[in-house]
Amino acid sequence: MVLVKDDLTKEISAAIAEENTFVVTDKNVEKYYPLFFRDCDKFVIDPGENSKTLDTMAAIARKMLECGADRKTKIIAVGGGVVGDIAGFTASVFMRGIEWTSVPTTLLAQVDSGVGGKTAVDLDDYKNIIGAFHQPTDILVSLRFLETLPERERLCGLGEIIKTAFLDPKIFSVVESGLSRLVSFDRDTLYETVKECIAFKERIVAEDEKETTGRRKILNLGHTVGHAIEKTDKHRLSHGEYVLWGLLYESYITKNFISYEYYLYMTALVKKFLKGRKLKFDSASVADASLSDKKNSGGRISIIAAVDKGEQKELFFSRDEIFEGIERCKKELNL
Amino acid sequence: MVLVKDDLTKEISAAIAEENTFVVTDKNVEKYYPLFFRDCDKFVIDPGENSKTLDTMAAIARKMLECGADRKTKIIAVGGGVVGDIAGFTASVFMRGIEWTSVPTTLLAQVDSGVGGKTAVDLDDYKNIIGAFHQPTDILVSLRFLETLPERERLCGLGEIIKTAFLDPKIFSVVESGLSRLVSFDRDTLYETVKECIAFKERIVAEDEKETTGRRKILNLGHTVGHAIEKTDKHRLSHGEYVLWGLLYESYITKNFISYEYYLYMTALVKKFLKGRKLKFDSASVADASLSDKKNSGGRISIIAAVDKGEQKELFFSRDEIFEGIERCKKELNL
Repeated sequence: MVLVKDDLTKEISAAIAEENTFVVTDKNVEKYYPLFFRDCDKFVIDPGENSKTLDTMAAIARKMLECGADRKTKIIAVGGGVVGDIAGFTASVFMRGIEWTSVPTTLLAQVDSGVGGKTAVDLDDYKNIIGAFHQPTDILVSLRFLETLPERERLCGLGEIIKTAFLDPKIFSVVESGLSRLVSFDRDTLYETVKECIAFKERIVAEDEKETTGRRKILNLGHTVGHAIEKTDKHRLSHGEYVLWGLLYESYITKNFISYEYYLYMTALVKKFLKGRKLKFDSASVADASLSDKKNSGGRISIIAAVDKGEQKELFFSRDEIFEGIERCKKELNL
Repeated sequence: MVLVKDDLTKEISAAIAEENTFVVTDKNVEKYYPLFFRDCDKFVIDPGENSKTLDTMAAIARKMLECGADRKTKIIAVGGGVVGDIAGFTASVFMRGIEWTSVPTTLLAQVDSGVGGKTAVDLDDYKNIIGAFHQPTDILVSLRFLETLPERERLCGLGEIIKTAFLDPKIFSVVESGLSRLVSFDRDTLYETVKECIAFKERIVAEDEKETTGRRKILNLGHTVGHAIEKTDKHRLSHGEYVLWGLLYESYITKNFISYEYYLYMTALVKKFLKGRKLKFDSASVADASLSDKKNSGGRISIIAAVDKGEQKELFFSRDEIFEGIERCKKELNL
């Protein structure tokens, strides 16, 4: 069940208060919303990508066992993408799989990672390389959480929304007509956008839950190069920002295969969001990292090309093509 | 596809030689069958339960990444239950799940763990607490491997066969009529028994792949107390031997709920196999360990009772009932 509302405080409290639940959250969420976590079995992780490890998963599982968790225990993940990923992955392997509820608290998680059942941890520098497809039983999306969202996290969520807009004409219209309202976090625009993004993602996921038909791959728009930069940059920025950089570079790399107008539109919009910011990285390292992405097959690098409104295709490039594309893009777009 | 044959050397070599495979085996198997592992990407674990950890899984995944593994890579597990568990679990979480082939080399794995798709690692003293249901695509059962099986491992497999015989009347007949031939590892009797055990397990698993309907639970006969002793005893013996001890104690604990004749038959047969051997353990620790078994629910300890030939039911006991049952069983059966 997916519930999207302005304020789900009561429903979330009720879910946590149910018998045999175990809450996973992070220190930031706990600090801002202490009332949720007063009387429950819980594990509070350090915020940030560095917590997405097998060690954290093992620590959560240990704490669950200490609390007497069993196969009927339900994990409730209250937090951003990292909390959802680690809690969902723990749910997928604890006693070979238990139920979980996703309560995404960041904009990024509400429109993306909290929906779709992809869970994972990182291994060394390999992002999301160990994981599972494990759908949450319930998803509770309360926009109220966004009130305490730091500026960088807002931008991060907007990054993923922009990505989705380039995939879905309906979201494209919302973003295009309400861009300034969206950027200023106008509640109504935000509500509509979040609802549309979730509906879109649910539709794609329903068509291809485990990424077997290829349909779900379109969600990877911006993510091949984005992930590679994120890895090379040691996760200094948040995920959505890397996706924006990935969108820029991938648009450029695929520009011979997509509508030129759409290419111009995408790069202009992303650059506008990035407001002249710079991100230095070594193109060779990023090309190498792209090659080790788990989305690849047979040594070719998979990139989703946003061909035009609502039209995408998967293209494959060599490591050297990616390297040269990035180098040229840096110069031409003055990044 | 399940293939059971006297000798599958060629088929196994061919499977390993296929493109984009990664072999997981252990040092013993590698020592006895070096030709299988000459020219393949592989990870060779130390034999024994101590290798069934998240760390080993991570090490295998790292090696796979170094070898350029992707989502199309197939893991081939050549070994006993530990190899199958760790390799199957790695396959279930590597890039959110890849295919694997099970090549069980011990009698125990051939009749039990290599079939059914239950994969797992241990966490501290909690056996199989982190894992997944992940069916192998193919299962290649070659009886030839049993030629190099140490005596203790033979007994171990026979232990699981005896457990299965108490569940399935057909295997009961094979075991009853061919007991001495089975114990002496007569090839024809072994072949028939292994085939019947796999067929039985496949039937049960097909009815209840993820242990949701309760049907699959009957396979846990002997395993609640067996696992608890194994845990308390720090895995000194091999798994099948603990199952035999578990069968003894659980038969006693459930004896008021099962056919008295069947109780006498089971305890007599198991004691015959154990040939007067002793296993000292602290009953309180085993009762405590039973309570933390993942098969439980709501603080009650789940035990499968073999009521009569082909008839089972699940019973629940308190920690103290298990403790007292074990204590009385030790005295009455002179264990």
